[in-house]
Amino acid sequence: MTRVHDIYPSDKVVLREVGLRDGLQMVKTFPSTAAKRDWIAREYAAGVRHFEVGSFLPAKTFPQFSDVREMVKTVAALPGAHGIALALNERGVNEALESGVAEVATVVSATEEHSRANANRSRDEAIANVERLCRLRDASRHKPIVHAAISMALGCSIAGPVDPREVVRLAEKCYAAGADVVGIADTVGYAGPKQVGELTAATVKIAGHRPVCVHLHDTRGMGVANASAALDAGARILDGSLGGLGGCPFAPGATGNVVFEDLVFLCHSKGFETGIDIEKLIEVRGILRSEMPLEALYGGLARAGLPRGRQEVPA
Amino acid sequence: MTRVHDIYPSDKVVLREVGLRDGLQMVKTFPSTAAKRDWIAREYAAGVRHFEVGSFLPAKTFPQFSDVREMVKTVAALPGAHGIALALNERGVNEALESGVAEVATVVSATEEHSRANANRSRDEAIANVERLCRLRDASRHKPIVHAAISMALGCSIAGPVDPREVVRLAEKCYAAGADVVGIADTVGYAGPKQVGELTAATVKIAGHRPVCVHLHDTRGMGVANASAALDAGARILDGSLGGLGGCPFAPGATGNVVFEDLVFLCHSKGFETGIDIEKLIEVRGILRSEMPLEALYGGLARAGLPRGRQEVPA
Repeated sequence: MTRVHDIYPSDKVVLREVGLRDGLQMVKTFPSTAAKRDWIAREYAAGVRHFEVGSFLPAKTFPQFSDVREMVKTVAALPGAHGIALALNERGVNEALESGVAEVATVVSATEEHSRANANRSRDEAIANVERLCRLRDASRHKPIVHAAISMALGCSIAGPVDPREVVRLAEKCYAAGADVVGIADTVGYAGPKQVGELTAATVKIAGHRPVCVHLHDTRGMGVANASAALDAGARILDGSLGGLGGCPFAPGATGNVVFEDLVFLCHSKGFETGIDIEKLIEVRGILRSEMPLEALYGGLARAGLPRGRQEVPA
Repeated sequence: MTRVHDIYPSDKVVLREVGLRDGLQMVKTFPSTAAKRDWIAREYAAGVRHFEVGSFLPAKTFPQFSDVREMVKTVAALPGAHGIALALNERGVNEALESGVAEVATVVSATEEHSRANANRSRDEAIANVERLCRLRDASRHKPIVHAAISMALGCSIAGPVDPREVVRLAEKCYAAGADVVGIADTVGYAGPKQVGELTAATVKIAGHRPVCVHLHDTRGMGVANASAALDAGARILDGSLGGLGGCPFAPGATGNVVFEDLVFLCHSKGFETGIDIEKLIEVRGILRSEMPLEALYGGLARAGLPRGRQEVPA
């Protein structure tokens, strides 16, 4: 338990850049390996320390993640930086562990319908996959953090509304299986702040001292409001992507994750230190604009800049 | 006091469409009078009842508001609809009263610097203008609601941070002058939800049974989060513009008011009835697209639609 709290201190807000994974999940054009390295290096210089760098998926279908091992090494080489990679099935988990990545994330669908349709397995089988990952972690030399993310936790693209008690039950199972961190994900940007606050509070309650991550999408413009509610309810790990990069497979034309720069502004405005320099972060968007000129980028801070008299937001 | 509570019941959230005024404040091309009538009629059919329809400003400089009297009549002809018009100075106030508009809004800057620079008067003179308007209201036959909006209440384009105690002091003066409603406006989208919640709570406290309006801009992506905080703090009147139409004179390229459609979704997600049909509202954007093709429109609901299983949001 010591180690996970070094990475995710309970008294501090951690903002994780997931653009290199979730932001690239659906794209057709993507940054070169060199540009991704630059993206990581420049966000690191802006103060970002937590990076989800890719997914262990077949390179033929997901060429955007074929350099995931190099990204893992890029992050590992930066002092104090923490790399995360996604692994969905047994093969992916094995590859992730071999890569030496500091954190392996895997997914459990909140609904049986989505679990079957998306991963061709039951939720119990997904939990068994978490258990297996935790056993392999315990047997491994570098003992990565295991992150179990509950997708569709706030609404499902297939089943519609999701009973929060089901999500809490799955979160309990994930912790019981040995997960170090449980994430609750509004994968399809379904929820408003009330729902996010209530589910976060319920999950934080059963989590006790164990970290809870809240992963939000801005699909319906509620991203920042939901992040604010998650913070109010006790979440201390939030995900975002630079420029809100990404989309939603179930809503064509929809936006992706919460805009990272705006998330930083939100945290600072609420008095949470993040160590991230917003203006330096905004400059990194240039990489996305030149590498992925057709992708829409979002964000209020990038459009308007910091407010007058707030050029120096207390970090 | 009876009348203002008919228009703004204390137990119900009122969302006001301000796109026809604030949304058109800075534009170069704007809808025809017929298109504006259609905009109002179709939003009315979607359930919207409160419309800020224009400003009494010199038609030469602000041709977009030259038909404000016709817009006042358009709204007045719709059963249960409520029209609002902005009047900044003595001449404007006189014209607004003559137009028979149901609500006259006027502005007091939160800072002396902005009051001088923007309106060439002190804040005391602006308060005197509210007093004069209230006297004229009392002497008038139709007795319009008087709305005193405190601009730059959450941060100033000139002075930077604003002391909330100053805003509360000005709000007290406005109520004492006879204002029926006091508005607090984040004119330049300066604030985050903590600041909005705190100022709203302080204003609601001194307002007692008198309505408080919170007018937010989405300049830095905090609009919906700030609206959520305002609702939590007891505000029951919020402004928005269809598609987030509008901009910010102090931040070129910045967005305008909170997106009206997203604001409706927020309210429904928090359990506040608005009587507004989001899908019908989204369809009205077509008018803006055809009349103002160069203006950027925003909004998550318009991009992604209602979530699955929420096609019928409880109204």
